[in-house]
Amino acid sequence: MIDSGDMNGKVLFDDGEHKFVWLGTDADYRRGVVQTMQYLIIDKGRGWLLDPGGVHLFSRVVASASRLVPLDRIEGIFFSHQDPDVSSGIALWLGVTPAKIYISELWTRFLPHFGIVDASRVVPIESLGKGVSLGSGARLAFVPTHFMHSPGAFSLFDERSRILFSGDVGAAIFPEGEERLFIDDFELARPHLEGFHRRIIASNAVARRWSESVSRLSPAMIAPQHGGVFRDKAVRDFLSWLGGLRCGVDLLDELYKA
Amino acid sequence: MIDSGDMNGKVLFDDGEHKFVWLGTDADYRRGVVQTMQYLIIDKGRGWLLDPGGVHLFSRVVASASRLVPLDRIEGIFFSHQDPDVSSGIALWLGVTPAKIYISELWTRFLPHFGIVDASRVVPIESLGKGVSLGSGARLAFVPTHFMHSPGAFSLFDERSRILFSGDVGAAIFPEGEERLFIDDFELARPHLEGFHRRIIASNAVARRWSESVSRLSPAMIAPQHGGVFRDKAVRDFLSWLGGLRCGVDLLDELYKA
Repeated sequence: MIDSGDMNGKVLFDDGEHKFVWLGTDADYRRGVVQTMQYLIIDKGRGWLLDPGGVHLFSRVVASASRLVPLDRIEGIFFSHQDPDVSSGIALWLGVTPAKIYISELWTRFLPHFGIVDASRVVPIESLGKGVSLGSGARLAFVPTHFMHSPGAFSLFDERSRILFSGDVGAAIFPEGEERLFIDDFELARPHLEGFHRRIIASNAVARRWSESVSRLSPAMIAPQHGGVFRDKAVRDFLSWLGGLRCGVDLLDELYKA
Repeated sequence: MIDSGDMNGKVLFDDGEHKFVWLGTDADYRRGVVQTMQYLIIDKGRGWLLDPGGVHLFSRVVASASRLVPLDRIEGIFFSHQDPDVSSGIALWLGVTPAKIYISELWTRFLPHFGIVDASRVVPIESLGKGVSLGSGARLAFVPTHFMHSPGAFSLFDERSRILFSGDVGAAIFPEGEERLFIDDFELARPHLEGFHRRIIASNAVARRWSESVSRLSPAMIAPQHGGVFRDKAVRDFLSWLGGLRCGVDLLDELYKA
């Protein structure tokens, strides 16, 4: 269970001018709908939202975010990839904030299918090089996450807080009533994420490449879009497990059985 | 150029009780938005729509489809995968038709992020076995297309017309003014589809597996969601090329360059 005091959000890092905040959850979520986690980085009073989610979450997330930063000071919205649970709220977010949208260049031509018209507000991540600097000097680094699962995906590493926002990677689907905000023991969480990772990551070759590159960043936390936030030893245990996972096209005979 | 007589659609197969129809295109499409192709199967007066597309296409596609079959006789909507250009119109389509939505079970929990609530109208394709029979006895077969690109994707083979609807596989992006409905010479189309396929298909292992299984079906046409419809020899040439393509995680060093 998530502590009732945390339902409306939790500050994961705060050094006075730079914060990384989890935006909370619903007390009564909808059955049959995969749950998502939203995060907000606030740096010297300006905000970046990470995968703020689909249409049906919009009212809750906009309320949570606006308690922490005025909407007209949200300057960036990061989309790890193109899935509906990540990006279908895009037109609403463009309407209530002046933010630019950052997503892999593979998807910039697809987003208008949600009804957006102002292409000048959609920025391909590849065009930015390896990251961006915020007002305080803190850096956000874009970490290639292609084929984990989406062919065009990025994670975002907040160098100041040392928190990696990983999109679908690390996503756990907890049984009802067993949701938790933090994962401190990877082995306890593994049954709730093993099937998903085996099924959606393209192959061990890419899982190993990603986990090696993330290990070099030595993140304090890994914060995925679903499930719980990995801390400390659970970060290392998760990366070590992921690097050895057989998945996706490694299991082609299961997927393409005659 | 697409013949002006074909802009409003083209019947690709018709034996009197079973039709496979391409639903046409816009005379002046929007720059910077990837173009999509929509198809309708009509069998004894009942319809199946294939990847009817995102929100901004809805009014055109609903007009095209309703000229051919009453909307209340559209009983199935097939989604090859979960991308926004395929599925973001789902709530609108559920509103104007009594159709059920057919999509890989991997995505049924994600679709509610578009705002849908009636889960009883979303059917996981895996639960149906290998296909469905229509009123005339004609069969639609579901062809696994996982990791081409989406981890949960299907093509649909209309056994009567021998037309394979392939979703993103075979998608070409023609330069403006060079769009065409049919691809009869694969070599002429190849430059417009090579980059896309190298980038989004997970690996040669899966490309080869898919092209072998589709070759066994011996389709008369392959109709993708973008680009042009392959006919006759171009079908075989495309499948042969695809089976040998190095792509996705085969090119990990390009994707994950340091």
